[in-house]
Amino acid sequence: MRFVDTIEKKADGGVLSKQEIDDMISGYVSGEIPDYQMSSMMMAILQRGMNDVEATELTRAMMHSGDVVDLSDLPGVKVDKHSTGGVGDTTTLVVAPLVAACGGTVAKMSGRGLGHTGGTLDKLESIPGTNIEQSMENFKRIVRENGVCVIGQTGNLVPADKKMYALRDVTATVRSIPLIASSIMSKKLASGADCIVLDVKTGSGAFMRTKEEAFELAQLMTNIGKLAGRKVRAVVTDMNQPLGMAVGNALEVREAVQVLSGEVPETDPLYEVCMILGSQLLQMAELAGDDAQARKMLREKIDDRSGLRKLQNMFRLMGGDESYVCVERMDELVQVKKHVAVEALSDGYVSSMNAEEIGTAAQMLGAGRAKKEDPVDPAVGLVMKVRCGYQVKKGDMLCDLYVNDDSHLEEVVNLLHQAIHVTPELGETEPMVYGIVTANN
Amino acid sequence: MRFVDTIEKKADGGVLSKQEIDDMISGYVSGEIPDYQMSSMMMAILQRGMNDVEATELTRAMMHSGDVVDLSDLPGVKVDKHSTGGVGDTTTLVVAPLVAACGGTVAKMSGRGLGHTGGTLDKLESIPGTNIEQSMENFKRIVRENGVCVIGQTGNLVPADKKMYALRDVTATVRSIPLIASSIMSKKLASGADCIVLDVKTGSGAFMRTKEEAFELAQLMTNIGKLAGRKVRAVVTDMNQPLGMAVGNALEVREAVQVLSGEVPETDPLYEVCMILGSQLLQMAELAGDDAQARKMLREKIDDRSGLRKLQNMFRLMGGDESYVCVERMDELVQVKKHVAVEALSDGYVSSMNAEEIGTAAQMLGAGRAKKEDPVDPAVGLVMKVRCGYQVKKGDMLCDLYVNDDSHLEEVVNLLHQAIHVTPELGETEPMVYGIVTANN
Repeated sequence: MRFVDTIEKKADGGVLSKQEIDDMISGYVSGEIPDYQMSSMMMAILQRGMNDVEATELTRAMMHSGDVVDLSDLPGVKVDKHSTGGVGDTTTLVVAPLVAACGGTVAKMSGRGLGHTGGTLDKLESIPGTNIEQSMENFKRIVRENGVCVIGQTGNLVPADKKMYALRDVTATVRSIPLIASSIMSKKLASGADCIVLDVKTGSGAFMRTKEEAFELAQLMTNIGKLAGRKVRAVVTDMNQPLGMAVGNALEVREAVQVLSGEVPETDPLYEVCMILGSQLLQMAELAGDDAQARKMLREKIDDRSGLRKLQNMFRLMGGDESYVCVERMDELVQVKKHVAVEALSDGYVSSMNAEEIGTAAQMLGAGRAKKEDPVDPAVGLVMKVRCGYQVKKGDMLCDLYVNDDSHLEEVVNLLHQAIHVTPELGETEPMVYGIVTANN
Repeated sequence: MRFVDTIEKKADGGVLSKQEIDDMISGYVSGEIPDYQMSSMMMAILQRGMNDVEATELTRAMMHSGDVVDLSDLPGVKVDKHSTGGVGDTTTLVVAPLVAACGGTVAKMSGRGLGHTGGTLDKLESIPGTNIEQSMENFKRIVRENGVCVIGQTGNLVPADKKMYALRDVTATVRSIPLIASSIMSKKLASGADCIVLDVKTGSGAFMRTKEEAFELAQLMTNIGKLAGRKVRAVVTDMNQPLGMAVGNALEVREAVQVLSGEVPETDPLYEVCMILGSQLLQMAELAGDDAQARKMLREKIDDRSGLRKLQNMFRLMGGDESYVCVERMDELVQVKKHVAVEALSDGYVSSMNAEEIGTAAQMLGAGRAKKEDPVDPAVGLVMKVRCGYQVKKGDMLCDLYVNDDSHLEEVVNLLHQAIHVTPELGETEPMVYGIVTANN
């Protein structure tokens, strides 16, 4: 079958076969299928969708376009976590060590990516000496010794996704749910874990702007996981405001360390989301029988600091100076030239926020990258002093900026005033978690 | 606006502005917009459609991507005709000289194109000596002298269409109604006529397989015409069987000459479609007040042979040997090595035909091109002996093959037996003309 006929089939709303999907991915990676045909196909997929089986075959074909990590020589149940990306989301640095302390095996590879703040890799690198580029051998050695290791993607993982994503970015086909699902799941499946929890964010700071889209993506990814023989659950969580209070690299590591040190109350949204994600992983790995037991186990690993020790060990084994990884010394890593307070301009309530704009403000301070080659400053960023629903008086601090380079300061302050809506009436507040999604196929 | 945002707008079902459409076409022609973005956009247009104003702006932008012919220095009302292409369709060679004989000015440029039979240009070239490549000066001189001339496209007409069509062909975006309409109408508008009649074919041998699609295309093209300030009407006609009895180049010219010589009865479908198309042109050009008057005028030009003389003069002025252009001598141009009769295999009725397969059979005999560089044999092809609804007995001739190269003969005969359905019961027969469409905007 010529590829143009496969495009026509999808353009007419047809269902692609495994063979057609395999030929598409191998042809595209080899260069036999040119970009202009692939972009037409991806627009057809955006418009016509894919059913679960198609999306699974696409995921599988993409996964097998490059290296597939074999973690079977590691002991225990291998668990992994993925977030669709948000602002102030440092759950990985809390959940991974806690689950490892509970007996899970967390061998996680993270992508660098662009974004408001650096990703997990930039956060890791804010601890001096940490080398996120580890060989597969070293990576497994660290996991064997410590139960948890998070590194940068190694080897040639899912080259099809790299090529497809670059093309989607310039052809307005980024927002296709099956293409997003297969992009995420191909990398997760290629990374080798048995159990995967997905944190699908929705709201003003998330890629999925509506709850409906988020649930659709969550459902498809869990269904793909099941068809591919893995245990996958998804949690749909709110991203209408930053998850944690901190937005910045060392600032977010400090907040993770605070959670792991028991310094953050159980009512805290970051704490709650970490518990839910951790609980799902422990249940899938059959390390806990139910949510109550899982939460109790996770809490114990906070109280006895064994989660924090896992994180410290991980940094040490990756060459980092673990002595910083405690509440007493993290402040040294967020020393900046000046602090600037963003203050409420009127009395009222924080009725809503634009989380994306808050992320952009942190990026403009140097915490994130606009271009791949931009450096990040680990110390800078901002710490929110309010959440949606808080009552404020004029002059109250809305957030505390950590500034080294003040060249865009005025713009940043204006952006934050625009992003944090203070109104006379209390707005509706959204729950932190909208639901947990399991495969329905 | 970045072009990726324009693609996204259309992908979301938005309406593109004149500026966005102009930027798209100029950017694509200049090479600034790469194929992979344009193909994504065209798939979005295929899926989401365009309204009349968008399609008109697209047509206009394409039209102005190259030369625009100015016919204003020619006398009279300039009329043009376009067919969306079918099998055994030789209406141009009948309608153009008849309308010229009635006082219309027919300055028509034709594309070469691929197809079951060669297009109008191949038919013209079947008269020895005819040169279809004429300069604009010569072309206008012939029209001035004779009232009618049909040549190959000259100059750089609608380069945007050439580039877009080549891309659509390999990205499964050929079937988009607004893209088809703008492709056809940009060339018609650039060709400079005041009044245009469009013959939109529907059925097994046409590009528009359903009547609904054909009417949609006809409506959009007439609406574009009106918005662009031209008089345009469309006739939706049947292509569930060859229009004329002849399928082949000299064979079709012979049939046209027979019509122009009064040798074809008024009940003949080719005759009827020529009358309707001619009548529409005469009415639009205000050379006739109504259909009855127009038909009377056209009939007179058959009866007094003035239409035939226009055709003979045209061939002479283009270097052709006009002495062949009469019923007495056309047979010399269809001399072939052998004739093969395709016979009915059983008693019954011709209930339906697959006109495309009949066209393919003629092509395989050498009458049409599979590839651009293929030569055509002017003499070969086939002459149908039956039409839908005819009763036949086993052994009756269904069609008469004109063969020079018999290397695919068995295949051709099998294909024709498959294409001409003889059944015990009489099937439903379709009318020749489904309707006349005028602008409704």
